[in-house]
Amino acid sequence: MANEFRKQAENRSIDESCQPIIEAGLKQGIETAWERLEKQKPQCGFGQLGICCTNCDMGPCRIDPFGNDPQKGVCGATADTIVARNLIRMLATGAAAHSDHGREILEVLYEAATDKADAYTITDVEKLKALADEYGLATDGISTKDLAKALSLKILEEFGTIKGKLQFYERLPEKRKALLNKLGIAPRSVDREIVETMHRVHMGVDNDYINLLTHGLRTALSDGWGGSMMATEASDVLFGTPSPLSSQVNLAVLKQDQVNIILHGHNPILSEMIVNAAMDKDAVAKAKAMGATGINLAGMCCTGNELLMRRGVPIAGNMLNQELAIMSGAVEAMVVDYQCIFPAIVDVAGCFHTQVISTASKAKFPGATHMEFEPHSAVQTAAAIVDQAIENFPNRKKDRLCIPNNPADWTAGFSVEALLKALGGSTDPLLDAIKSGQIRGAVGIVGCNNPKVKHDFAHVRIMERLIADNVLVVGTGCAMIAAGKAGLMMPESAEKAGPGLKAVCQALGIPPVLHMGSCVDCSRILVLVAALAKALDVDISDLPVLGSAPEWYSEKAVSIGSYFVASGVTVHLGLSPRILGSKAVTSLLTQGLESVVKASFFVETDPDKAADAMIEKIDQKRKALGI
Amino acid sequence: MANEFRKQAENRSIDESCQPIIEAGLKQGIETAWERLEKQKPQCGFGQLGICCTNCDMGPCRIDPFGNDPQKGVCGATADTIVARNLIRMLATGAAAHSDHGREILEVLYEAATDKADAYTITDVEKLKALADEYGLATDGISTKDLAKALSLKILEEFGTIKGKLQFYERLPEKRKALLNKLGIAPRSVDREIVETMHRVHMGVDNDYINLLTHGLRTALSDGWGGSMMATEASDVLFGTPSPLSSQVNLAVLKQDQVNIILHGHNPILSEMIVNAAMDKDAVAKAKAMGATGINLAGMCCTGNELLMRRGVPIAGNMLNQELAIMSGAVEAMVVDYQCIFPAIVDVAGCFHTQVISTASKAKFPGATHMEFEPHSAVQTAAAIVDQAIENFPNRKKDRLCIPNNPADWTAGFSVEALLKALGGSTDPLLDAIKSGQIRGAVGIVGCNNPKVKHDFAHVRIMERLIADNVLVVGTGCAMIAAGKAGLMMPESAEKAGPGLKAVCQALGIPPVLHMGSCVDCSRILVLVAALAKALDVDISDLPVLGSAPEWYSEKAVSIGSYFVASGVTVHLGLSPRILGSKAVTSLLTQGLESVVKASFFVETDPDKAADAMIEKIDQKRKALGI
Repeated sequence: MANEFRKQAENRSIDESCQPIIEAGLKQGIETAWERLEKQKPQCGFGQLGICCTNCDMGPCRIDPFGNDPQKGVCGATADTIVARNLIRMLATGAAAHSDHGREILEVLYEAATDKADAYTITDVEKLKALADEYGLATDGISTKDLAKALSLKILEEFGTIKGKLQFYERLPEKRKALLNKLGIAPRSVDREIVETMHRVHMGVDNDYINLLTHGLRTALSDGWGGSMMATEASDVLFGTPSPLSSQVNLAVLKQDQVNIILHGHNPILSEMIVNAAMDKDAVAKAKAMGATGINLAGMCCTGNELLMRRGVPIAGNMLNQELAIMSGAVEAMVVDYQCIFPAIVDVAGCFHTQVISTASKAKFPGATHMEFEPHSAVQTAAAIVDQAIENFPNRKKDRLCIPNNPADWTAGFSVEALLKALGGSTDPLLDAIKSGQIRGAVGIVGCNNPKVKHDFAHVRIMERLIADNVLVVGTGCAMIAAGKAGLMMPESAEKAGPGLKAVCQALGIPPVLHMGSCVDCSRILVLVAALAKALDVDISDLPVLGSAPEWYSEKAVSIGSYFVASGVTVHLGLSPRILGSKAVTSLLTQGLESVVKASFFVETDPDKAADAMIEKIDQKRKALGI
Repeated sequence: MANEFRKQAENRSIDESCQPIIEAGLKQGIETAWERLEKQKPQCGFGQLGICCTNCDMGPCRIDPFGNDPQKGVCGATADTIVARNLIRMLATGAAAHSDHGREILEVLYEAATDKADAYTITDVEKLKALADEYGLATDGISTKDLAKALSLKILEEFGTIKGKLQFYERLPEKRKALLNKLGIAPRSVDREIVETMHRVHMGVDNDYINLLTHGLRTALSDGWGGSMMATEASDVLFGTPSPLSSQVNLAVLKQDQVNIILHGHNPILSEMIVNAAMDKDAVAKAKAMGATGINLAGMCCTGNELLMRRGVPIAGNMLNQELAIMSGAVEAMVVDYQCIFPAIVDVAGCFHTQVISTASKAKFPGATHMEFEPHSAVQTAAAIVDQAIENFPNRKKDRLCIPNNPADWTAGFSVEALLKALGGSTDPLLDAIKSGQIRGAVGIVGCNNPKVKHDFAHVRIMERLIADNVLVVGTGCAMIAAGKAGLMMPESAEKAGPGLKAVCQALGIPPVLHMGSCVDCSRILVLVAALAKALDVDISDLPVLGSAPEWYSEKAVSIGSYFVASGVTVHLGLSPRILGSKAVTSLLTQGLESVVKASFFVETDPDKAADAMIEKIDQKRKALGI
């Protein structure tokens, strides 16, 4: 039986730091995502195919996938309409998540600038000035705060309807802009496109799957070149633009003798304050008085990525590690903001001493302790949270501790600015390496975990294959955490790369897989590919670059994938979206889009075949470019 | 068999004008909503209970309603979370539909004011000035156009994030505002609340059903006191505030010897232009040359209500009449804008000569002719559409004509302004009648049709019962079209009212059921109840008034019902929303809300029992008021 549990743990994840915990959980009968997925099986076939519609009270309706009755909903909607509507509603949810996050960061920037949130300062004045310049604001003789105030208002204006355009959209290369303008899908606002998507999916509004999906692309663009990019840029202004640094990753970053606090979610606004609070002398003294040797912070998911990139805070894991971290028995508090937080962590925490502390007014979790964050009292709230964790240390049950050994080392912090600096100030060395064939191309690997596939396996396998074939990998989110855990993110990891890429990495002192940040930081990838296209005077779609989401699960990933495609980057998906119930939609997304935006999606569940396909597509692009 | 069809037609609808057409359709085997609903049966039980979640790609998940496994989604979401998320996502879709409609009207107002849309003029200068005043704009010495420009920008600003509040929210009585402010649900913007709802329903964001539903109320308020009210007010400025007028209603308004054009959807912007174009001498001459005696316009659903209220255009029917109108064989063109338009009308039109003409870029219908409307070319597009209909007249198949006789007469146009005028300029006479008991109370009956219930039956039965018990009925949307078809909307209809209400109606020359407009005009009902509460210095929840949606189907109705409840008006629903899979959500919405917003929902499928319950609740409110 013990052997059986071990085998099951190995089947669930390639992350060695979590296998013993999975095993222990199986022994103890603790329910995690894998058990819940098992209990959901068989999952509804209509839902999986996307041909179920619950958009009005005449329904729910579903289409028979075998061509028998019913072929239409009560209103007359066909499978094509239903599938397209469901997909763009998922996309809009994802775009809303990113953009609402961006809005919050901008509001804190505004509050910091207007002395309503003293805890926050403008850290990157250079970026502030560059952005102000981009937005056409005068910068000479203006104080940093006044400039931050003016800039935040200028950007916040783009959530509204009146301005009618997004400044960052101007960062696209001319050829791409011309194409998108011709298609009429330049985003007019961050919120407007999302709300219009919602309008369109109402019964009796848009029933043309092409029209629906086209607006989906526009909505996605308002995320990528709007909400997400705003979140990235404003976070950089507030907390600093990332530059390369070293840290550690996997569940072994938890410390046996310290108060462990995990910072989980997506928004750095509160967790940046917690990082400060955990360094407070009195707090550390209190932790010691409680029997700990100190306070240990570890990130998780994208709150983790935000803190890693700018502060070097180690990361305990990615999405499927969240329950397992608690099951280590060593977590005094899991502090959550929002997005990708399993409500189940409260149940798992109930089996241990861990306190789940929710902090966002818009994200409450039944059973969690709610300590609401507000910018003006961020320092106090952060201190109170750290204190709560310290107080919880004596409740730890030592006989249930299961902390793995051997945290992995990794480097991160590769903002576009940092990358350019590493390249000596210009994209030329990178382009030269691509032209010469030393670097064959680049793939942005992003996205989540999904218990439907072996945890981290697809991520790591694809990355290993790509770098071995001299394809540079950049990425964000849970994908990068997988890479870190697998040891692909040290300068020495260049050894695992093919000879060309290896040489380039060694010359620059960088790993072959570059961590560019959290999922909103996919916007950094957009800026990078735009810069490369501009330098070559080509469209983004001409570049030998691809996107990939090998283990995606989230509606945000639907938006990210779509804005990559709309920007000209073909995207691989390791799991199919729920579109297979419509041949027309499937064909448009996987083929038809090529003639519209010169990029498309492809689904390949097998990581090796996916890597093969990506390399082939990269070679095709190289050939077309004549390199 | 013929007898059988007749019986079936009578079972489907109480609208006598459409029964012969249903019967003919059954004979000819033409598929309509009733057949499609039949084919959908049995409808998915998980979907009906609201316990199916398709919000991420770990799913689809569903909760076992009998308490067995699974009780949680893969993420850990419970039935409570899933039901609440699904409900507020429906609500947000409805709010988005209304608000995006409002935005479009405001944009046309702006374009009219800035000479970018010459076809449009400012019709109600008085209302323009009153609104400008309400928004704190200087009006003295400012030209009408400049004022309209300033006002439209001022209102459009409220779709954005920066302003942080909605002006029309100030129309609420102080007590209600204080309550809502205390709850923290004063809406900050039209778009923002919708987008935040979408953020909250993403996996791992809001999992607390109370928190979710509370934000749902905020989102609904941003529709009722925001997007919808903006749509109403801006439409009044552009096209005139309605005042009482007479017209006709039911399928018999179609004319045997004329070119029939049906205007279907929700937005008056294009259809107002078509009303003008149909009066063009050359067009009429061409129609005559084609063998018709003229051009006949008929409205449908809320585009119909908009044109009825301001121009007296007759209405052919409500939502379940849309396919039947085409099946009369007498419709040359069905012109659609957006919302509640069955994509199936294209299929039905394929059996006849009718051209379905779609006009909105955001609402295309496969198989329809698309003639895209833009404000700057509205006159030309309208003329082209009318011409297309005329050209189609010779294609009519006379042997398939099935136009009923006896259109019903009705009166409409009861804007709040018109009502106040009828009352002599003040709400006092109405309040006096309520205090004296002549009028027992008032119910706003709104909403749709739904093939799950006999067409128009619940609407009409409830209205007949209420007016007989001296309850004044006001309403909007398809509900009012049902009332008109049933003969409840003539001054003489007062004969059907109880003695008190009858006397009041006769004294004022009004019917006992007052048509207040389209579904965005539910905002007129809000303004009316706010005025009554202010006059009595009580909260809206103290008034002996209720809302009712006896045959609702639409996500817009979810939003409407919710903003009524949040504003203090208890709402009856004739069909249950998909919430029964969560006892907690069901209990909160039907009971718990009373202690939060002093109003709640109740579901009663039997119209007589519903009327009884409403009268009882009205009497309770009267008692509490001491009248």
